[in-house]
Amino acid sequence: MLRRKFIQSAALAATGITGISSISHAAGIVGPDTGYADSPYIIGPLEGYSPQIGTLVSMLNYNRMTIINATKALTMEQVDYLHDAKSNTIGALIMHLGAVDKWYQVNSFEGRDEFTDAEKKIWNDAMELGDAGRKNIKGKDVKLYLDLITEVREKTLAEFKKRDDKWLLAIDPKFGNGKQQFNTYWKWFHVCEHESNHRGQIAWLKGRMPGAKEGGE
Amino acid sequence: MLRRKFIQSAALAATGITGISSISHAAGIVGPDTGYADSPYIIGPLEGYSPQIGTLVSMLNYNRMTIINATKALTMEQVDYLHDAKSNTIGALIMHLGAVDKWYQVNSFEGRDEFTDAEKKIWNDAMELGDAGRKNIKGKDVKLYLDLITEVREKTLAEFKKRDDKWLLAIDPKFGNGKQQFNTYWKWFHVCEHESNHRGQIAWLKGRMPGAKEGGE
Repeated sequence: MLRRKFIQSAALAATGITGISSISHAAGIVGPDTGYADSPYIIGPLEGYSPQIGTLVSMLNYNRMTIINATKALTMEQVDYLHDAKSNTIGALIMHLGAVDKWYQVNSFEGRDEFTDAEKKIWNDAMELGDAGRKNIKGKDVKLYLDLITEVREKTLAEFKKRDDKWLLAIDPKFGNGKQQFNTYWKWFHVCEHESNHRGQIAWLKGRMPGAKEGGE
Repeated sequence: MLRRKFIQSAALAATGITGISSISHAAGIVGPDTGYADSPYIIGPLEGYSPQIGTLVSMLNYNRMTIINATKALTMEQVDYLHDAKSNTIGALIMHLGAVDKWYQVNSFEGRDEFTDAEKKIWNDAMELGDAGRKNIKGKDVKLYLDLITEVREKTLAEFKKRDDKWLLAIDPKFGNGKQQFNTYWKWFHVCEHESNHRGQIAWLKGRMPGAKEGGE
């Protein structure tokens, strides 16, 4: 049926997962304690958050669910798969998502520009990707990476509950290149859409790694 | 400076473009007639749209701008570059974004499940990607593809102006797999985040195509 085909081609080309049902299945991983709506396919205000923040959270939850579904069943060999010398492993890409989440926490909740040395120890290689990530992020089960970024995300959502739409929409005059204005909502929308960006690469790599099943187109 | 580095690593790893300034430069391509905010880095309600629709439009505009910036300077050889037998060209990926936008127009504005034959002629190969796209989407300047998807997007934004948040948040009981509820906002958020998904693949391909400059990591 064409509608079904298109829905799946749109949703699955993005996620590289094997069926809509496995998307809904994973909602529990993100968890009801995040204020997650019953269906991951309902975007909009969420109880416990101001209207625009709740809408953002429903987007963050949906995107994160697709990342978890696309990666949770991978073997260590697959998570460490390096397609070519310029590529990043899926393990490094997962950790990169956590690093970016963490960095925008530091920036938008604490007003800091830089990680502490302790934060750098955990997140710098993943933040920068490239050689450091290729060298240092390997030999772990995917569950470790997913648990680490889930812990970061839970902190993000807990902080969102304390804030309001005025905070989310406020412009940060200290942020960016000095030529354009940036607001807090852009920072967190970027954290969200940045996960889709790397999910596209994860899907591409999944189509080409040892034991690849999906097309990876 | 670490903050700048991180902003750029986050923003540019995603877009594969050469600088923040060229992001802002492209805002004009999306155009003031779309209700675009002065800065593409301000996400939130926009004049001429209901609050949640305006916020969605600011996200769609930001993401589309990054697609335009990542592709507008590519040569025909680069737009037609096929990395391997499973890959899609960047030209096909750009057209795929237009096809998905068009399909969700048909679905959410007209309540149709399928393209008309005339719509299929233009969009089916791009919608399905794979062999049809590899065979039939080639030999054109990137401007043609970008003009086509811009025309589709202008229709989307014009229709959004006629609608309200109640429409955006409404659940569509006919949509999806019958196990989960989907709302209109999810449909259009997916159109938005789906562009980031393929932008990640475009950036990856740009790092490996003839005349590649960016790292493509």
